[in-house]
Amino acid sequence: MLEPPTTSTQEDPGEVGLVQWKDFHWPHSFTCDSGDTLPELTLRYETYGQLNSRRNNAILVCHALSGDHHCAGIHDLKDRKAGWWNNIIGPGKPLDTNRFFVICSNCLGGCQGSTGPASNNPETGRPYHLDFPLVTIGDMVRAQHLLLTEGLGIHELAAVIGGSMGGMQVLQWGIAFPGFVKKLLPLATTARQNAQAIAFNEVGRLAIMQDPAWNNGRYAEDEGPDVGLAVARMMAHITYLSDAGLQEKFGRDRVTTKKAARQLFDAEFEVESYLRYQGQSFINRFDANSYLYLTKALDRFDLYGAEERMEEQLQAVAAETLVVGFTSDWLFPTAQNRAIVHALLRCGKRASYAEVDMSLGHDSFLVHAPELYKLVTAFLKA
Amino acid sequence: MLEPPTTSTQEDPGEVGLVQWKDFHWPHSFTCDSGDTLPELTLRYETYGQLNSRRNNAILVCHALSGDHHCAGIHDLKDRKAGWWNNIIGPGKPLDTNRFFVICSNCLGGCQGSTGPASNNPETGRPYHLDFPLVTIGDMVRAQHLLLTEGLGIHELAAVIGGSMGGMQVLQWGIAFPGFVKKLLPLATTARQNAQAIAFNEVGRLAIMQDPAWNNGRYAEDEGPDVGLAVARMMAHITYLSDAGLQEKFGRDRVTTKKAARQLFDAEFEVESYLRYQGQSFINRFDANSYLYLTKALDRFDLYGAEERMEEQLQAVAAETLVVGFTSDWLFPTAQNRAIVHALLRCGKRASYAEVDMSLGHDSFLVHAPELYKLVTAFLKA
Repeated sequence: MLEPPTTSTQEDPGEVGLVQWKDFHWPHSFTCDSGDTLPELTLRYETYGQLNSRRNNAILVCHALSGDHHCAGIHDLKDRKAGWWNNIIGPGKPLDTNRFFVICSNCLGGCQGSTGPASNNPETGRPYHLDFPLVTIGDMVRAQHLLLTEGLGIHELAAVIGGSMGGMQVLQWGIAFPGFVKKLLPLATTARQNAQAIAFNEVGRLAIMQDPAWNNGRYAEDEGPDVGLAVARMMAHITYLSDAGLQEKFGRDRVTTKKAARQLFDAEFEVESYLRYQGQSFINRFDANSYLYLTKALDRFDLYGAEERMEEQLQAVAAETLVVGFTSDWLFPTAQNRAIVHALLRCGKRASYAEVDMSLGHDSFLVHAPELYKLVTAFLKA
Repeated sequence: MLEPPTTSTQEDPGEVGLVQWKDFHWPHSFTCDSGDTLPELTLRYETYGQLNSRRNNAILVCHALSGDHHCAGIHDLKDRKAGWWNNIIGPGKPLDTNRFFVICSNCLGGCQGSTGPASNNPETGRPYHLDFPLVTIGDMVRAQHLLLTEGLGIHELAAVIGGSMGGMQVLQWGIAFPGFVKKLLPLATTARQNAQAIAFNEVGRLAIMQDPAWNNGRYAEDEGPDVGLAVARMMAHITYLSDAGLQEKFGRDRVTTKKAARQLFDAEFEVESYLRYQGQSFINRFDANSYLYLTKALDRFDLYGAEERMEEQLQAVAAETLVVGFTSDWLFPTAQNRAIVHALLRCGKRASYAEVDMSLGHDSFLVHAPELYKLVTAFLKA
């Protein structure tokens, strides 16, 4: 499946090169936390590196809301962009494919090949749309567990790592399958979706649902609520960045004459033009119903629970945990990241918190982050 | 026009009581910063207290984006809510109507009685819609100056005060009419709209413009893009609050059974229900085109200018200035408020900065804020 890894040193990391996704198909029913069942499910995934003979060098990467299974390498030599976390995955990189077998699957409820609201319901022969069950972070993790055990014959993970929604899955892994995973690396995340984050998601959902093309979730594949989805994405994208980051990158720069506003409320500032581009490119790769379901899974995530039972849940954790927060992240601020470690420590678990000082905001975990690389590399070696 | 003020002490402030708005009509042309002219204009305004015989006890209040001229008292004994800044205006209150003659007008470009895109263009007999000129904060201030001089015979202001967009107008007053105003009180504001604030406004504008009912700005009064305007307002409303404030007020509380979700993506959390209410009530009182124009005026506000010429502009200021920032304001963070004072001090002006520690976010200046009251009272007395 993979090109042979380039010989490389820590100073000169190589690339995983050409990769190809695969589909894991589970032909049996899958019961969701809600009690609803899916008659079958598919997870699309990619792997990088080699599984060792003891089958214990696997690392699971969990993607964020708008991510997918393609986190490293390229699908075609003409691809201009590599997978979304190519900077951290590869020979000699922090998730070192010379040592580890790295796996990433598109989450349950997603729209990049895994079973989600746009998938065909085999019982009706038509897309699920809103008949799809309200999946949870727990459901996503149990589906990944199926992929590992039934699909890949893996019964032990060296680590699970992910940021944002991926970080929630990491925490859930530690709680739901404590014997399975050695190390947890939740980044830029929270143990509980706060009111402000719910509020932003709700505005995004309404932008989608109030687009007439949404049609109560019943739309043909190429006729979805693009307008609403673009607005939702643009707003969310602001929450992934920061005031300082945006000011640094765009400031009050005007769009150049060539692109300049021809009508009264056309994009006048570069930041507007950038956001419009983000919105447009998102609608080409994302399903609006998936966006509703995944944001709802985020909003319902709450390890504290109604009865402040977080510690009770965390008692199950057996893995060692390193939580990394980012100073400029205002979607899941550092205090929310720190709180996870405090709770683990109160439960007598081995857990540490590290804070990386970067100005980009929530998305800092996705970009070039040398301090994060050092932390991840050392934690995986320790 | 006003009920006689209640006898009151500082400890027991009274109310301005029943008030009535008036219209100032300027039947001559008004040239905007853009060079475009309006053939005539109207500003709707209210006043509280009495103008003294020397006509020098007037305070001008400038409202924020979604505010209007009705900032104190009630219009009818059955009114359940007083004007938007009733907590700070009245006999014995910080803007003490026993001492001051307080004036507030709906801004040019607004939609509560002053000339804006929904007004009739006397030259065509139809609403301006997008033929309305792109008004600036400077235009708003020059229109207010007309109201004062031509409408009320006032040629001196004891103070100008306002938060957010109102604060921008306060700064503009100090620069454009330096001999006119004694004291400037800009609150929770900025001398320059930053990229992040522009970005949020742009998403709001797109939500409106992508609503089919917007129809390129040409819609009948009761058939506007309500859906888009509600989404824009909901998003903006989040930026006026704070993570901590929302968490404190709503946390993850679920809506009670009575109101509870009947369909899959109905409001599940109280914060969602609250935001939906904010969106719905906004569309009943605001014109979508006005929202486009006013947010654009905000985005274009930049005292620094292309050539970093802020100090040059501030050289004109003759008034004494007190800028007040709020710790939890992340729309116009404290650093942006402080920067105004630093620039004024560098120009040798009398200026001070005060920071009020409140958790509500940007809207802190609008709510019960005893520390702000003390600062305003003392600054006006000094």
